[in-house]
Amino acid sequence: MVIEYDSFQSSKKKPFGAVVKGTEITFNIKVHASDDIKEVLLHVARDGHWDAEHDHPMTKKAMTYQTTFTPKCPGLYFYYFEVITEQENCFYGCLDGGFGGEGVLYMKRADVQMYQLTVMNQVEQIPEWYQHGLAYHIFVDRFNNGNPDGHINNPKPNSFIYGQKSDLPMYIRNSQQEVVRWDFYGGNLLGIEKKLPYLKQLGVTVIYLSPIFEAMSNHRYDTGDYFKIDPMLGTLDDFDHLVKAIHDSGMHVILDGVFNHVGVNSRYFNQAGVYDTLGAAQSQDSRYYPWFTFTKYPQEYDSWWGVTDLPTVDKNNVDFQNFIYGNDDSVIDYWTARGVDGWRLDVADELPDEFIMGIRHALDKYPDKILIGEVWEDASHKLAYGKRRHYLEGGMLQAVMNYPLRKLIIRVLTGDLKPSEWWLELMTLKENYPTTVFKYNFNNIGSHDTTRILTKLHGNRDWLQQAFGMLFTLPGVPCVYYGDETGLMGGKDPNNRAFFPWDKLDINLQQFVEQWYHWRAQHQWLDMADFAPFYLDSYGIGYVYWHDDKKLLIVLNTSSNQRQINANDMMLDVVPSDLAVAVKKCLIGMSLEHGDFNVIEDF
Amino acid sequence: MVIEYDSFQSSKKKPFGAVVKGTEITFNIKVHASDDIKEVLLHVARDGHWDAEHDHPMTKKAMTYQTTFTPKCPGLYFYYFEVITEQENCFYGCLDGGFGGEGVLYMKRADVQMYQLTVMNQVEQIPEWYQHGLAYHIFVDRFNNGNPDGHINNPKPNSFIYGQKSDLPMYIRNSQQEVVRWDFYGGNLLGIEKKLPYLKQLGVTVIYLSPIFEAMSNHRYDTGDYFKIDPMLGTLDDFDHLVKAIHDSGMHVILDGVFNHVGVNSRYFNQAGVYDTLGAAQSQDSRYYPWFTFTKYPQEYDSWWGVTDLPTVDKNNVDFQNFIYGNDDSVIDYWTARGVDGWRLDVADELPDEFIMGIRHALDKYPDKILIGEVWEDASHKLAYGKRRHYLEGGMLQAVMNYPLRKLIIRVLTGDLKPSEWWLELMTLKENYPTTVFKYNFNNIGSHDTTRILTKLHGNRDWLQQAFGMLFTLPGVPCVYYGDETGLMGGKDPNNRAFFPWDKLDINLQQFVEQWYHWRAQHQWLDMADFAPFYLDSYGIGYVYWHDDKKLLIVLNTSSNQRQINANDMMLDVVPSDLAVAVKKCLIGMSLEHGDFNVIEDF
Repeated sequence: MVIEYDSFQSSKKKPFGAVVKGTEITFNIKVHASDDIKEVLLHVARDGHWDAEHDHPMTKKAMTYQTTFTPKCPGLYFYYFEVITEQENCFYGCLDGGFGGEGVLYMKRADVQMYQLTVMNQVEQIPEWYQHGLAYHIFVDRFNNGNPDGHINNPKPNSFIYGQKSDLPMYIRNSQQEVVRWDFYGGNLLGIEKKLPYLKQLGVTVIYLSPIFEAMSNHRYDTGDYFKIDPMLGTLDDFDHLVKAIHDSGMHVILDGVFNHVGVNSRYFNQAGVYDTLGAAQSQDSRYYPWFTFTKYPQEYDSWWGVTDLPTVDKNNVDFQNFIYGNDDSVIDYWTARGVDGWRLDVADELPDEFIMGIRHALDKYPDKILIGEVWEDASHKLAYGKRRHYLEGGMLQAVMNYPLRKLIIRVLTGDLKPSEWWLELMTLKENYPTTVFKYNFNNIGSHDTTRILTKLHGNRDWLQQAFGMLFTLPGVPCVYYGDETGLMGGKDPNNRAFFPWDKLDINLQQFVEQWYHWRAQHQWLDMADFAPFYLDSYGIGYVYWHDDKKLLIVLNTSSNQRQINANDMMLDVVPSDLAVAVKKCLIGMSLEHGDFNVIEDF
Repeated sequence: MVIEYDSFQSSKKKPFGAVVKGTEITFNIKVHASDDIKEVLLHVARDGHWDAEHDHPMTKKAMTYQTTFTPKCPGLYFYYFEVITEQENCFYGCLDGGFGGEGVLYMKRADVQMYQLTVMNQVEQIPEWYQHGLAYHIFVDRFNNGNPDGHINNPKPNSFIYGQKSDLPMYIRNSQQEVVRWDFYGGNLLGIEKKLPYLKQLGVTVIYLSPIFEAMSNHRYDTGDYFKIDPMLGTLDDFDHLVKAIHDSGMHVILDGVFNHVGVNSRYFNQAGVYDTLGAAQSQDSRYYPWFTFTKYPQEYDSWWGVTDLPTVDKNNVDFQNFIYGNDDSVIDYWTARGVDGWRLDVADELPDEFIMGIRHALDKYPDKILIGEVWEDASHKLAYGKRRHYLEGGMLQAVMNYPLRKLIIRVLTGDLKPSEWWLELMTLKENYPTTVFKYNFNNIGSHDTTRILTKLHGNRDWLQQAFGMLFTLPGVPCVYYGDETGLMGGKDPNNRAFFPWDKLDINLQQFVEQWYHWRAQHQWLDMADFAPFYLDSYGIGYVYWHDDKKLLIVLNTSSNQRQINANDMMLDVVPSDLAVAVKKCLIGMSLEHGDFNVIEDF
């Protein structure tokens, strides 16, 4: 038996990809069987409701069996097909790995891998500034010290300052591998403000800052006081001044919101009594005591990944919820009212859906704000702690940090992924994500949590240029991790957090990245356009955008050799047929050099 | 048989203690034997010349046997007595442990412990400023930063600066316990100059500085360039200015001379090529190649205690000798000509006698200089690497760091040493050392290489006051380790090297120490006076000074109880009899409180 189905093709499933609840979806499959077909069924069930699985008998039309299905609830649905003949029951589901597109025949129901169908509550509103956003991620301690004499603001007790900015970062640990003193370079808010002309020149329109609230560490993910700018970074005035300067430069600013845990020496936990308020670790009478989960008071308590420096807060605690987003003077309100344009939620997987919804609700009181989550995988179907997450179905996150796209870019360049696999994975992301998420996801090719891009690409500058090319031309909001634009290298934390090498710039690379920032700014139509990727046999990838009368073609040689494009190399399945003709016409016979990244606007 | 001898008593041995070669020494011993004495002999031999041991038959005079001996050579001699009767041969030597004073009878010659006799080449000249010196030891990185804005001069690459001056010092090591980055507080020469009024007020007249030449580490015992002030400390101008300011304040300055080894990244070894000259580790054509001993070029080489950061220099290399002290523009000449008043030789045990003599010779071209050695034990009989050292016999060191006295002070206070033992050990030092050494030794109760005094005394402030009292009233040049005067605590390196707590002073203790500095300045006659210690049974110690018509009595309760002095408690053996009468008269019936330190000038 042969079954023809392809979830990427509107002739088979319509509409493509994620839908809003209540949208009727039409399924068509073609069945070639040697004996008589008794019945063809679509089996579809809401995620977690397998007991209520529904059979949808499909109606034969010519060679095709058709049915429609209208999901009523937001969330995920999963589906597969069953063909019943005299002889056998056959099943058709997706490829192992959960990919969309063409599927495969299964002989046993228990083996079937089901297709994902993402259903949204509503289409998210995305602020226009963010749709066209060109972002830059600053790890604040490591970017720039704005003090004219270079002094470090208020170094913390029991900390170390790097002797020179060019020193490589390191952790200062004891023999138990615990960090015993935090290490700082002394980057600060004034330093960022002074580099706004640099960022403006580069083409940045959105600045994403690593945490800036008072903390003990250099990364400041161990919040000490949610209402205080870290004194090493500056004052509240410095913050206000910076935000105003960012806005005056036509840019926007996103803060890092760290709400899963606090610092062990925060005002709230206050283990060492650093703060003048009564902390949870000091007394069970503390206002903050109910925020934490002690297993043995006060020594043992829940903490992030067992890191005792970071006691976990109970996000179901109503007082904490109000503190973060519920009260009029909540953390979210306080800083958003001061001009913050968006938040990136740290370890979103650790935050209950209700908590994220609460933050979003608080943010929605202000116009044109954005809420982004830190999720490392395909966030459309993330299971965290055995629970399905609903980040992207509306009313929660508008985007996530697009680590899956980063992996696709890196792996196709380094040869870990074949062009066809790249295409399939990217198409699956496109199918699974709500359109607004796929279009406006927060893309990166490196962050403070990953190996730097140039290091990840083994120092290969051809690949680096292709990676930047993809970052700036694939759908989503490109975000450059500070220093990547000047070729800063470094492995995982702490090596990916070196100080910005202001006195040792790679001007050529910077200009190259600047050109991309500006190119994207000049192609805002891409943010509204349709998009389809394709691939060239085993040696290349490409994609097309089209919108109204505009179209754009991008093609890369991902192999290590020069190649001439042959008509048979091109897999243009998801490119609309008229466009595919144009693409073919344009590409056939084209010579692709190793490292090529071609942008073709007239074809 | 009973033999009476006591090397401390001039009735038994005259003159007392060390003598210049050619001085006739008279020995008297009393023998009570039950049978007829056939012969009494003094056996005396020059150190290392046991084959040329000499028998000196002793002549009977009344109950006493007498002989004289005139040592011809400088160095040590060792002696014991033999009594031959019909029945037996008996031997009389010193107490096990090499103590002077009364000895003990031995039945076998092989068991005899011999008395030490120190013989000098000449009596050393000691500059008057140093005789009356009241010293202060500064670990330069940790004393004071004189920059008005507090910035650190020229932080080194791959180093760390403490976030706050109050941070406790620590080493930054890797898992192999190697120091991977050096830690600095940023004390500098200007900082010292700015604190000269403080030191002047305290009563300091001699400043001993830890190494100040360019180096990688914070302690700078890993010299990088002998002709360059470390840029973190300041410029050559800063140095000149400081030396002038020290002299203008009526003070003198001693530098730390580190000549046994250099830094692995010195101009001379230059392993990492930090310096622009060709280093020994870079090429065998280097001028400096012959300075070092490579066992496998260039990876393996002799280093100080196997610390590969500190390659040992071959002190027998003539080029190195000339570089350090032989040339007109030698290291010693360069800095001494710039105004340095003396040198403290690091790890003197590692420097050959000839090398030390060469330094002394170079120094003696300049008037009134002092050369002090770092020796941890009784330097009169130090064996280093199986070789007897001749530090104190004239023409080499004028003084050593008096760690044995430090131990005596600490141990008698903490009860590890009985008053009688304290007395015996102190008298033995007095006997073994040339008079100028005993009088002008470089005394301390703590240094950068020891636990801080208050920590060593378990935080007991009564003991601390008694320790300071002894430091300032015992013979020698008292030297206070920076911070000890304000009660800074800390165990061994690095904890004994905290930054001076300028904003957290113990004013009472400082004033107490200041009183001692000034008291000693007002008692310069002590530096010329005779000295004798005594003890009070198991609970106290004391000492007397006398000179012309002046006398001074000091008495301490070292026990934990109040005690009333009884005539029988007093052991005044080495106090001249007329003075002993006065001391008894003064002390009998006196009540000594716990922690008492009494200074009595009129008695």
